[in-house]
Amino acid sequence: MRRIHLTIEYDGTNYAGWQRQSNALAVQQVLEEALSRLTGERVVLHGASRTDAGVHALGQSAHFDTQSRIPGEKFSYAVNTMLPPDIRVSASEDADPNFHARFSTVGKRYRYLFYDAHHAGALNRLTHAHSIYPLNERLMQAEANALIGTHDFAAFAASGSVVRDTVRTIWRADVTRQGHDVMLIVEGSGFLYNMVRIIAGTLRDIGSGKLEPGALIRAIETGDRLDLGVTAPAHGLTLMEVFYRLPETCAIPVPPKRAYPAPDEEEA
Amino acid sequence: MRRIHLTIEYDGTNYAGWQRQSNALAVQQVLEEALSRLTGERVVLHGASRTDAGVHALGQSAHFDTQSRIPGEKFSYAVNTMLPPDIRVSASEDADPNFHARFSTVGKRYRYLFYDAHHAGALNRLTHAHSIYPLNERLMQAEANALIGTHDFAAFAASGSVVRDTVRTIWRADVTRQGHDVMLIVEGSGFLYNMVRIIAGTLRDIGSGKLEPGALIRAIETGDRLDLGVTAPAHGLTLMEVFYRLPETCAIPVPPKRAYPAPDEEEA
Repeated sequence: MRRIHLTIEYDGTNYAGWQRQSNALAVQQVLEEALSRLTGERVVLHGASRTDAGVHALGQSAHFDTQSRIPGEKFSYAVNTMLPPDIRVSASEDADPNFHARFSTVGKRYRYLFYDAHHAGALNRLTHAHSIYPLNERLMQAEANALIGTHDFAAFAASGSVVRDTVRTIWRADVTRQGHDVMLIVEGSGFLYNMVRIIAGTLRDIGSGKLEPGALIRAIETGDRLDLGVTAPAHGLTLMEVFYRLPETCAIPVPPKRAYPAPDEEEA
Repeated sequence: MRRIHLTIEYDGTNYAGWQRQSNALAVQQVLEEALSRLTGERVVLHGASRTDAGVHALGQSAHFDTQSRIPGEKFSYAVNTMLPPDIRVSASEDADPNFHARFSTVGKRYRYLFYDAHHAGALNRLTHAHSIYPLNERLMQAEANALIGTHDFAAFAASGSVVRDTVRTIWRADVTRQGHDVMLIVEGSGFLYNMVRIIAGTLRDIGSGKLEPGALIRAIETGDRLDLGVTAPAHGLTLMEVFYRLPETCAIPVPPKRAYPAPDEEEA
């Protein structure tokens, strides 16, 4: 038995998220069916992040086991011929049998894109959340700095979340502007359900003047979701990379991983 | 009667180009129908560039005449509520009765995007042309420099073109790379049918080693389409801006406009 590691890109617009659903088409299902046809086996994929409906990925990561003799790096070419153009396997390789796409992660990078113009964009409408209010990216960056460090992010989980351990480490939170595009990049040890979209929405509300600066620090202290802004829409979010080694640019201590994330707890 | 000038953005993926067709849906038709509903008049749009099927625009320009009393800058907001999300009017204003969206142009800026990676992208598939061969962007830039100036671009028109005067001035041709994205920006007094896509395809073929450097100069001298590379696909092309005044960055002399472009001659 071999273990194959895939890096996956998708446009989440037309999918019910990563995870297989009984009543809607998910990216995992499309990939599993293509890999099953390719190998003649019943392939089960283990993905690193259960991205929500509408969320995109440039660097989703997943693994599966197979007895196929296809060389590891050839899987990407072979399976891409069987996939719709909005899902691509950008790399494939043989992995150690102890490697696990979800449990071996030490962190992830997400990107959130806003477009602050009078009118929504036509060409960027699937990847950028439109803000009719101008965003002050310096105010947003000053606010985002409060995220850096190891904190209890209990306030940052969507209601209904069942996570027990809500402590996470964030080592990067950059807000930059290019024209009308305002981009948030966050890197951290893990993210609770909807956490990046709640961070993005809070920064947007502060950047547009709807919310007072200091909300992130306050919410970390109080643990109260009501201290934060409105969750930003799914389509502005992209999973950029899954880390299996901390990046060299990580300049703060990251506590060793505990039992979290428990198998079904972590989501985007 | 008032003349209204619109700036228009569209994702060309699902349209048969800018110009109204009898047998397929064009951007012009969608806009004319929305503006006709808005004003209660039969609106006829005059667009600056007849972009081809699949070509995008961030800065298409068009005008129409109306007796409506809607303030000029309000047209964009009003008509956007009646448009599909892949077409947006990004600005509207009252224009001088002598202004003509096509005949008053002095130049245009186009962008062509390539993505040179082993696998096509999923998220950029509608705006980037995929090259499985790595592109040498320095070689492409050195080649593109030959375009600068006033030349007879007869070799650069798709066959079937009926243009008589094929002299155009190009004052900018920049090739830059960011990761796997290779971007060509060209600015010039006008472009023949498929001219930007022929330039992009030739630069791609030189960047990938399929074609010898010097092809652009040779084609300008010989006037022979066969000296150039394969036309690059429509979806990598975006009309960025229509100039009604030469940009200050234009550092070369541009001959005064002659009778060209004649009404039906110029296209992307």
